[in-house]
Amino acid sequence: MSLGSPLRRVDAEAKVTGQARYTDDMMMPGMLHACYVRSRIAHGNVTAIDTREAESMPGVEAVFTFHDVPSAPFPTAGHAWSLEPGKRDIADRHLLTGHVRHFGDGVAIVVARDLLSAERAAERVQVSYEALPVITRPLAALADNAPAIHPGGNLLRHSEIDAGEPDARMAAADLQLEGHYETPVVQHCHMEGVTCYAYMEQPDHIVIVSSTQIPQIVRRTVAQALGLPWSHVRVIKPYVGGGFGNKQDVLEEPMAAFLTQRLGGKPVKVSLSREECFVATRTRHAFSIDARLGMRRDGQLEGYRLTVLSNTGAYASHGHSIAAAGANKISYLYPRSAFGYCADTVYTNLPAAGAMRGYGAPQVDFALECLMDDAAARLDLDPLEVRLRNVARQGDRNPVNGKTIYSAGLTECLEKGRRLFEWDQRRAECLAQPADAPVRRGVGVACFSYGSNTYPVGVEIAGARLLLNQDGTVNLQIGATEIGQGSDTVFAQMASETLGIPFKQIRVISTQDTDITAFDPGAFASRQSYVAAPAIRRAAEIMRQKILAHAALISHQPEWGLTLCDGNVVMAMQPDQVLMSVADVAMQAYYHQEIGAQILAEVSHKTTTNPPAFGCTFVDLSIDIALCQVTINRILNLHDSGRILNPQLAEGQVHGGMGMGIGWALFEEMIIDEKSGVVRNPNLLDYKFPTCVDLPDLECAFVETVEPQSAYGHKALGEPPIISPGPAIRNAIRMATGVAINALPITPKTLYREFVQAGLIRE
Amino acid sequence: MSLGSPLRRVDAEAKVTGQARYTDDMMMPGMLHACYVRSRIAHGNVTAIDTREAESMPGVEAVFTFHDVPSAPFPTAGHAWSLEPGKRDIADRHLLTGHVRHFGDGVAIVVARDLLSAERAAERVQVSYEALPVITRPLAALADNAPAIHPGGNLLRHSEIDAGEPDARMAAADLQLEGHYETPVVQHCHMEGVTCYAYMEQPDHIVIVSSTQIPQIVRRTVAQALGLPWSHVRVIKPYVGGGFGNKQDVLEEPMAAFLTQRLGGKPVKVSLSREECFVATRTRHAFSIDARLGMRRDGQLEGYRLTVLSNTGAYASHGHSIAAAGANKISYLYPRSAFGYCADTVYTNLPAAGAMRGYGAPQVDFALECLMDDAAARLDLDPLEVRLRNVARQGDRNPVNGKTIYSAGLTECLEKGRRLFEWDQRRAECLAQPADAPVRRGVGVACFSYGSNTYPVGVEIAGARLLLNQDGTVNLQIGATEIGQGSDTVFAQMASETLGIPFKQIRVISTQDTDITAFDPGAFASRQSYVAAPAIRRAAEIMRQKILAHAALISHQPEWGLTLCDGNVVMAMQPDQVLMSVADVAMQAYYHQEIGAQILAEVSHKTTTNPPAFGCTFVDLSIDIALCQVTINRILNLHDSGRILNPQLAEGQVHGGMGMGIGWALFEEMIIDEKSGVVRNPNLLDYKFPTCVDLPDLECAFVETVEPQSAYGHKALGEPPIISPGPAIRNAIRMATGVAINALPITPKTLYREFVQAGLIRE
Repeated sequence: MSLGSPLRRVDAEAKVTGQARYTDDMMMPGMLHACYVRSRIAHGNVTAIDTREAESMPGVEAVFTFHDVPSAPFPTAGHAWSLEPGKRDIADRHLLTGHVRHFGDGVAIVVARDLLSAERAAERVQVSYEALPVITRPLAALADNAPAIHPGGNLLRHSEIDAGEPDARMAAADLQLEGHYETPVVQHCHMEGVTCYAYMEQPDHIVIVSSTQIPQIVRRTVAQALGLPWSHVRVIKPYVGGGFGNKQDVLEEPMAAFLTQRLGGKPVKVSLSREECFVATRTRHAFSIDARLGMRRDGQLEGYRLTVLSNTGAYASHGHSIAAAGANKISYLYPRSAFGYCADTVYTNLPAAGAMRGYGAPQVDFALECLMDDAAARLDLDPLEVRLRNVARQGDRNPVNGKTIYSAGLTECLEKGRRLFEWDQRRAECLAQPADAPVRRGVGVACFSYGSNTYPVGVEIAGARLLLNQDGTVNLQIGATEIGQGSDTVFAQMASETLGIPFKQIRVISTQDTDITAFDPGAFASRQSYVAAPAIRRAAEIMRQKILAHAALISHQPEWGLTLCDGNVVMAMQPDQVLMSVADVAMQAYYHQEIGAQILAEVSHKTTTNPPAFGCTFVDLSIDIALCQVTINRILNLHDSGRILNPQLAEGQVHGGMGMGIGWALFEEMIIDEKSGVVRNPNLLDYKFPTCVDLPDLECAFVETVEPQSAYGHKALGEPPIISPGPAIRNAIRMATGVAINALPITPKTLYREFVQAGLIRE
Repeated sequence: MSLGSPLRRVDAEAKVTGQARYTDDMMMPGMLHACYVRSRIAHGNVTAIDTREAESMPGVEAVFTFHDVPSAPFPTAGHAWSLEPGKRDIADRHLLTGHVRHFGDGVAIVVARDLLSAERAAERVQVSYEALPVITRPLAALADNAPAIHPGGNLLRHSEIDAGEPDARMAAADLQLEGHYETPVVQHCHMEGVTCYAYMEQPDHIVIVSSTQIPQIVRRTVAQALGLPWSHVRVIKPYVGGGFGNKQDVLEEPMAAFLTQRLGGKPVKVSLSREECFVATRTRHAFSIDARLGMRRDGQLEGYRLTVLSNTGAYASHGHSIAAAGANKISYLYPRSAFGYCADTVYTNLPAAGAMRGYGAPQVDFALECLMDDAAARLDLDPLEVRLRNVARQGDRNPVNGKTIYSAGLTECLEKGRRLFEWDQRRAECLAQPADAPVRRGVGVACFSYGSNTYPVGVEIAGARLLLNQDGTVNLQIGATEIGQGSDTVFAQMASETLGIPFKQIRVISTQDTDITAFDPGAFASRQSYVAAPAIRRAAEIMRQKILAHAALISHQPEWGLTLCDGNVVMAMQPDQVLMSVADVAMQAYYHQEIGAQILAEVSHKTTTNPPAFGCTFVDLSIDIALCQVTINRILNLHDSGRILNPQLAEGQVHGGMGMGIGWALFEEMIIDEKSGVVRNPNLLDYKFPTCVDLPDLECAFVETVEPQSAYGHKALGEPPIISPGPAIRNAIRMATGVAINALPITPKTLYREFVQAGLIRE
């Protein structure tokens, strides 16, 4: 059996040998390089721009300013198109702008024969600005006298959910509690930067090679940005070195396409520096959340309400989808409680926020799981017991959309975690420690729920094509995109499992090409293993049937008497009787003079189910009060992601998510000057991204449920691991110190301020 | 209607703007370049080879000699694999050899960081040889004491056909006539040279980008050459600038693959100079033919027998297939006559001969059509009348394979030609000219038949995939290869016709990628438009049905009430009622939340019919006896290729073929020293390739039959135009001068010799 085995990544060898080629590993003869002229103010209007000196510099091919770009705005969010105009993403972008809205906004771009010439010339473009007031906080943006960052005003969108009368049930509960929570602006910091190049392969056809999660959406958006029929754009996605949601946005592809179009089809590369990635790609939305709950004395959650202000920065990008999705994804966690949610997403002069692993759920979950913990403490209950009482169980219905939860292993995750983590013993030890210990220890727990795709908000469509080679190997071409997460490997496992052909004989075509590859919107929403699975399964079933039919034809056996096992056609009722290999069938199908044909199968499939994944984090940490230093003694994530398709890859996903979660909780923050909007730390030296020396051992465990709506019993796993470490860490710090810190990241600086205020440290 | 219209090539704009990219337009970072060390003798054994100096030269990465290459031999002919071992091509090649068999054979290869360094180092490889006797002629090769060029001896293969008792029927005829005919060694002279590069994309997977007609066969052969599973090789074919059969051979791809494999996957380019193309790729086989026929007094052909000696040069390549196929292809021409044929294909120390436009048919047809003309003259009959009496008619059966001829327009071609060319008048004028005129005029005619693919000798399989884009355009991915002949354009026309979607909305993916593209062995045997058509037609029918089914679903109309017309879904019984566009259907299919899917269709299809195409050439020429100069006054080709799918492209094919035919008849010859085997004119200055100033106006006309076995009524057209100009020209020269010249090319030098011998010129 292929599924469930800890098989090595299909791309492991190519990646470690350097034979796996990324966008920057490719070049074209005569390739030109582009460099932006970016604003050094966060808000203002360009009053004058002079490109003459730049244009005359050696190697410069062209300089374009905001005067030269198409006037129709376009959206950038990586969502599948919607047939309903009201559900489409907000089109507020131009390729370049004369109204700069954040530090680093693009006003012009220089194209030269090499990057250095482009950079030098970009420095010589003279730009004058009329400065406008800089707004960095949503509340200021919503003030009556605030300048409009976009013509429609600063409120991007407002939405409300009211499920099961939350206010009435909260009011009737024994305990009412509220809290205010803040989360920071962070950046994805994918290893591979944002890079792409474009060229024309015929006068009406632009090709873009890009490090993207979403080639099909890039195709459509570039066409929108340049006013072309969609089929006039072709996007090719090579290997990708991480995206984490940043590349679930259309970033530099429209610019590259515009430049090649304007330069007669010459290849043009647009590659951003790390500094530009920080200020001019996307970030995680900072949420400001007012949370309330009502809980019975016994820990039963009656209702909760979250009121969110989401800071989307200078452009909409995914904008309000993040705040809306965060609520939807978390709404499976405590489904027997009433749930109220309202959210405003607001423009400011921060760099644009977009999608990032967890897509709003980490922020919402942070507020909810902190408040749950505080309620447990108030009621003097074990926070683990409070979770166990309230979390989703099989058969529950989601309070927001009414969908039945068929697989729910969160109770088992909590119980397994209690045992593995020795929660009771550790908690008892912490409770027994002296109140004035210089180093205080605490344990914390937090839970989450998450969706397995975007349905019914978005259309969920995936495609897979299988091609049987002469040697019995099978090529799997898949619309879903490998971006480092290992999806190609589980796709190969799925095909292997259904075909009855060994995993090693499945070869995944990792490159997506929108002119050729079956349609799939791409890697986001932890959707791919769930929504690609039915397409793969169905295509594999078709291919399997074709192989058996041809084997029956050439062996004169009845088709029902044959089956496929381990790459061989065997007698169904006597599987040790090998009739022929799949390679034998293939050779006959290809080369028999009269009968047969190449054996192929392709399926495009829409998914209309979206089961929740669940999980939790247990953490044990110590805090040196005087040094304001947190040491994680032990951290354990447990996940119910249905059937685990590849334990080794699953563990990798969990480790990566936990590391990111710890970074978000304790280290990372883009420091943006409140007055000027200038980003102070747009680089990996000053931005405190945790490295391996900063992280503890990351432990994980799974509770395998079988999700009956899933093609192979599995559910989402890509994003979930990032969600619960943050609140679990915060809860452990509160337990250790009694100090409830409600804003992330909890850096030494924060701890010092809070400890001083709490009297733990004297100034 | 799309088919039958003179539509512009789908790649026209890309090609004239330079946006169509050929192999040499691509590069990779760190690409290495290879240069061969070639023998300057035509036959011998390497006694010593010293690479030390070359290895130490700047920029050199590696030098490999014949000692370093795999020991198992491989074949190179571009034939689909056969399940019958006896039908497979002869494996007599190694990547490099210590037994050099022709001038320019490869003994070593240098890989360097740039081509110049590689060339310089290649000059410093010291090679010593033990010379062996050089054999340039088949008869010498078959002599008892001839040295064996290959271990199995110099006779590559012998074959015989005996259909309808030719000897008995010839003996009983009024006239028995015989002749001996010789054809030259010529080269394809495709504009784009032989070039490819290879790299590894994972440790067990080699990618080759090559200017080839046959990517799938290259894949298989490279795997054979390197001892790999076939799926470990991937071949990508960009635009190709001509092949004419030379690239129906596996040329430098195995070497490029070997080099990248030995150099850790680094990209390595192997690109041959024009000189190397002449001596070290392939040529057209020189045939030496003894022909006999028996004819009734009234011009009825009773039987004919051709005895062929084919000179395959140093390696087998297509070898005996050429001699065998030439007979099969011509056997449809006079099907009511008995036919005898025997052929020996023989190794010599000439550069290896392979496939070239016409594939043996020009040579065989030359002998037959010269002899027919001589017989007509002997019987004092109009050679046109003799053809009209004997050529194939509908309902005839091929004497060799017994297949019924369903469409036969050759009689109509001859009649139409008689009219258009004013044959009777011109012939009368020539007959009336004074016998001693200093400039003599003659008219000639010759006919041919040809197949539409390789069945039943080879397996005929083709694949097509269609993908409906959101904007209602359709991508057509096709296994058949565009090499300049215009196949992509007629494929688009076919899809358009069957889909009911305008031609302009069909986009052909011109690049073949053996990992992805549906299987098709490639461009050869004038097969592609015939064998790809059923796959395209069936795929288009499936897509059309899917579009109509989805339109019916979303419009609540019955499916039978709808049809597709000009890119719209219309009411079948009221076609002016447009219900929606195909783009509307596509958008709903892609993006409706619950129903639909991407609309795709793919078909792999085997063809088991092979109808003959027919045609003829009429020529009127003048010969200045003293100057030995031939001037073509008028030349007209007429073709029955079934339904003409695109008159403009068809005309282009005919013009190209006629030009090549004239070159073969009057200009071209590789001059090879009989003693040394040295090629004297391996370049386009000394090799007399006719240019536009050497060619007359090329006229063509079609007789459109409808071939009922064909998906769109059409038959072969790619190769046929080259076949009959040669004998027609020779026949006109004989008519003008009375001198029957039976060896091509008929250069001024030949004419001088023959005219002196005939007493027309005094020495």
